[in-house]
Amino acid sequence: MELTVYLAGEIHSSWREEIKEKAHSLKLPITFVGPMENHDRSDLIGEEILGKQPGSVFRDEAASSINNLRTEVLLNKSDLVIALFGEKYKQWNTAMDASAALSLGKPLILIRPVELHHPLKELSRKANVTVENVDQAIKALSYIFEEL
Amino acid sequence: MELTVYLAGEIHSSWREEIKEKAHSLKLPITFVGPMENHDRSDLIGEEILGKQPGSVFRDEAASSINNLRTEVLLNKSDLVIALFGEKYKQWNTAMDASAALSLGKPLILIRPVELHHPLKELSRKANVTVENVDQAIKALSYIFEEL
Amino acid sequence: MELTVYLAGEIHSSWREEIKEKAHSLKLPITFVGPMENHDRSDLIGEEILGKQPGSVFRDEAASSINNLRTEVLLNKSDLVIALFGEKYKQWNTAMDASAALSLGKPLILIRPVELHHPLKELSRKANVTVENVDQAIKALSYIFEEL
Amino acid sequence: MELTVYLAGEIHSSWREEIKEKAHSLKLPITFVGPMENHDRSDLIGEEILGKQPGSVFRDEAASSINNLRTEVLLNKSDLVIALFGEKYKQWNTAMDASAALSLGKPLILIRPVELHHPLKELSRKANVTVENVDQAIKALSYIFEEL
Amino acid sequence: MELTVYLAGEIHSSWREEIKEKAHSLKLPITFVGPMENHDRSDLIGEEILGKQPGSVFRDEAASSINNLRTEVLLNKSDLVIALFGEKYKQWNTAMDASAALSLGKPLILIRPVELHHPLKELSRKANVTVENVDQAIKALSYIFEEL
Amino acid sequence: MELTVYLAGEIHSSWREEIKEKAHSLKLPITFVGPMENHDRSDLIGEEILGKQPGSVFRDEAASSINNLRTEVLLNKSDLVIALFGEKYKQWNTAMDASAALSLGKPLILIRPVELHHPLKELSRKANVTVENVDQAIKALSYIFEEL
Amino acid sequence: MELTVYLAGEIHSSWREEIKEKAHSLKLPITFVGPMENHDRSDLIGEEILGKQPGSVFRDEAASSINNLRTEVLLNKSDLVIALFGEKYKQWNTAMDASAALSLGKPLILIRPVELHHPLKELSRKANVTVENVDQAIKALSYIFEEL
Amino acid sequence: MELTVYLAGEIHSSWREEIKEKAHSLKLPITFVGPMENHDRSDLIGEEILGKQPGSVFRDEAASSINNLRTEVLLNKSDLVIALFGEKYKQWNTAMDASAALSLGKPLILIRPVELHHPLKELSRKANVTVENVDQAIKALSYIFEEL
Repeated sequence: MELTVYLAGEIHSSWREEIKEKAHSLKLPITFVGPMENHDRSDLIGEEILGKQPGSVFRDEAASSINNLRTEVLLNKSDLVIALFGEKYKQWNTAMDASAALSLGKPLILIRPVELHHPLKELSRKANVTVENVDQAIKALSYIFEEL
Repeated sequence: MELTVYLAGEIHSSWREEIKEKAHSLKLPITFVGPMENHDRSDLIGEEILGKQPGSVFRDEAASSINNLRTEVLLNKSDLVIALFGEKYKQWNTAMDASAALSLGKPLILIRPVELHHPLKELSRKANVTVENVDQAIKALSYIFEEL
Repeated sequence: MELTVYLAGEIHSSWREEIKEKAHSLKLPITFVGPMENHDRSDLIGEEILGKQPGSVFRDEAASSINNLRTEVLLNKSDLVIALFGEKYKQWNTAMDASAALSLGKPLILIRPVELHHPLKELSRKANVTVENVDQAIKALSYIFEEL
Repeated sequence: MELTVYLAGEIHSSWREEIKEKAHSLKLPITFVGPMENHDRSDLIGEEILGKQPGSVFRDEAASSINNLRTEVLLNKSDLVIALFGEKYKQWNTAMDASAALSLGKPLILIRPVELHHPLKELSRKANVTVENVDQAIKALSYIFEEL
Repeated sequence: MELTVYLAGEIHSSWREEIKEKAHSLKLPITFVGPMENHDRSDLIGEEILGKQPGSVFRDEAASSINNLRTEVLLNKSDLVIALFGEKYKQWNTAMDASAALSLGKPLILIRPVELHHPLKELSRKANVTVENVDQAIKALSYIFEEL
Repeated sequence: MELTVYLAGEIHSSWREEIKEKAHSLKLPITFVGPMENHDRSDLIGEEILGKQPGSVFRDEAASSINNLRTEVLLNKSDLVIALFGEKYKQWNTAMDASAALSLGKPLILIRPVELHHPLKELSRKANVTVENVDQAIKALSYIFEEL
Repeated sequence: MELTVYLAGEIHSSWREEIKEKAHSLKLPITFVGPMENHDRSDLIGEEILGKQPGSVFRDEAASSINNLRTEVLLNKSDLVIALFGEKYKQWNTAMDASAALSLGKPLILIRPVELHHPLKELSRKANVTVENVDQAIKALSYIFEEL
Repeated sequence: MELTVYLAGEIHSSWREEIKEKAHSLKLPITFVGPMENHDRSDLIGEEILGKQPGSVFRDEAASSINNLRTEVLLNKSDLVIALFGEKYKQWNTAMDASAALSLGKPLILIRPVELHHPLKELSRKANVTVENVDQAIKALSYIFEEL
């Protein structure tokens, strides 16, 4: 049995690499997918494909249409979603992806520092599991395959 | 034809009152519902019902379970969702409610100041309509009933 | 038993009035809903609510977001959809509304002149009933209530 | 990760070949499917299988039943739909396929010349991405696989 | 609490009248709906609305499109379906309606003489309840409202 | 806004009366529904309607088919489910109803004595709220209507 | 692209073998599945697994529970359903399987002799394609793969 | 055709090994999955991943969140569920998994000793097949693949 896992969350740190490496060293049969991690490319992809837009709001809208396309295709292919929240950034699309996963019937692991427990309490209550770091998420993933 | 509209978003300003009054003065046949707006009551409802919890994380989890119950019942009864984002607060449950609405096939109006266009660009692209203030949202609601 | 019927199609002729009057004279317990029939208002509603847009493509996109909101709310409330195609106009949103109705499990009556049978043959095969004029559609509606 | 992409739209030009070749040269792991591109065969398949029909309306209905069967099977197998609209033809089945894709939760890329922005504004607002040519669609497809 | 019940099955005997009268005398808050019981009207409705058809197969297809429209609208509005099979007739549309009800998540009561148990065994196993006569079905309906 | 609430659980104590009275005294606009509370009638309803069965297993199967019919109709009509577990009985149908509610997207309040926390831990984690007594459940219901 | 096709219908003639051979000779990438074709085994499987039952009705019910299990598993795995009706037998489970397929969003090819057009008219109108013999069904299957 | 089967039920006896061995000796193309069978590990996994919890209720809640994650991922991947009830334990999560399977449209085989027929009568009536031992369940699984 192989799983596909979507990694939702900020693209400014290397948490996805950490998860992939640890899953690889544990030989977990998981394919990881996720958003474009090159931040500039993610912001500019709208104008790159759709051409120059009339101002920053429209440029953002163009970029988000391409990024949403990517997310929707990859989320549909996934068996489980991991959403990581950090101290910085608004991260509203992370919340949106997490909620979309739940609504699609896909299990959700939430990773967030304990300092963020208050603003994330409603999402945390809906997630299957809420943890504080990548190591805990890997243990939960690994547990799915144990003794199968 | 009557509609039920869920008003998702922060509970620190009086934007819901403004919407209700304007809809009332336009005689729109709309019932508005939404989260508990008494902030303290929203935070304390968990311990009030479930008893003293062992620390703030558990108290938040208790409160969020009751608040999620309310949101889920009322969201299920709604025909349309309006989600308002402001300059302050994390507002991740607003993003979560907005995304849940979309996943349930319920139309969504997003209200946000233009300053927030960048962090909300993905959600904005998924909403039916994105506006900057309550007056615009009321016009959109009113348009649904025009010439019916 | 009362039904709500969405009338999809062009807004340049008075076919909706004709259906409403005939249903009224037959005392059919039907509430009819549909798109904004004031063509200018439909085209300008985007800029009226969202403000001046940078060119006609963006103005159209703004208008369509409001019009789609209206359609989605009213289509969700409907028990049956009637879609009328005429000789003029592209009418792609009529095709889109008809297909959305089918996908939502809502029965569909298609009205089209026989001259259009070829380009509409795939949609016709998916509709519950395909007729050529409003009188036939009224007879089909009336038949639903007969001898109940 | 491999994707299946349904190419909806007119069958009179070679746009599908162009997409397939460009995807092939980029080594994108995509299987493309779509409607019968042999126009005569598409129109005659009804009578070929079901026998001589009593007139052109019935011949079209017979053909459309077979063509709808093909579309439904292949659309159900797809992860993403690309719908192309051109200057000619009614293309109502393209609109129907695009709307069916959206209703089934499948992401949609819309290709249309900018001249058609007005009649397609409602569909465009519902599509994930709207572009003007095949090259832009290929870039969007390619972006899904980048840095995975 | 009021229920709507669709009565699927042959239209040659007066079993529907019997159910309605017994439910009425028990003051059950039920609205009964069902197919057109006037057999000739049911067979001729296609040509009455769509005009003369080229032969009996096409006349039947025309009639069935109108009858299916009626069934689909009324079945969608129902909370429960009762399907009655008798000794005569093919009754394939009864089987079709019963299966559609199950697929839509609507509870099903099957009425059939015990002599038909063998050919109906698969459908019987899927129905919520299988009984042999109208009186038993009324008792099951009545039980739903008892002590509420 | 009025709600319908299904009360799943054992039928040997008067907990449903307690909930109904307390909701009534708080003037909550709730209609309560639930299983047949007359235990003998619940066990005998199968043979009463379907006739003498060949042994206790078949008698139980007959009864359960009628009881499942009732539950399915009433659960479909409900906006929220309360499931109460007590110290006695297997209560597997309570677990089944609770799980069916969750799968149907209906919010769930679980009532159970804290002594049962271990065997119910998986269901508790899926419920919206888990409480220990009827008074807490009433508070949660009441909170839904507060300040609306 | 490979398809799985469920062959619903009577198990007294060799029509399934005919379809399989013809599909094989055309090298169509199709896996065919279907009900148990050994009639005695199909009727006796209930008692073989569940033990001696108290009479023929219960024996049939036992058998149908196993046969329904098989059908449900295989139907869920299928991309398309072919349902064949012949002159003999009640064939209500064929009607049931055909309707279940439609409700699950799976395309349906109906095969029936033209003599049966009247009793099957409602099902025929819902099927994607209605043909009279196996050769026509094979042509329709083959058409799905043409020029892919 | 390969199937994935989820084995729900108690983890104190070796019934899963028995099923796997018998399926293996019959060369059935089935992958079996199920809950963590190491009981201590199942109870302690919450604290192992989430850290020390404030008391047994919270420890159970932590464990159940991880166990539910595993169940949900594996149940989503399954084509069929077998649920076994024994004489001991509450087994409410078995009832919950069985009901979740039914709600997800996945066929269910129920294994229970005949002594438990009364408390399981409602679930039994909803299952596709109810048997008394593992050998019978294997025969039902085997029957699905016979003569394919």
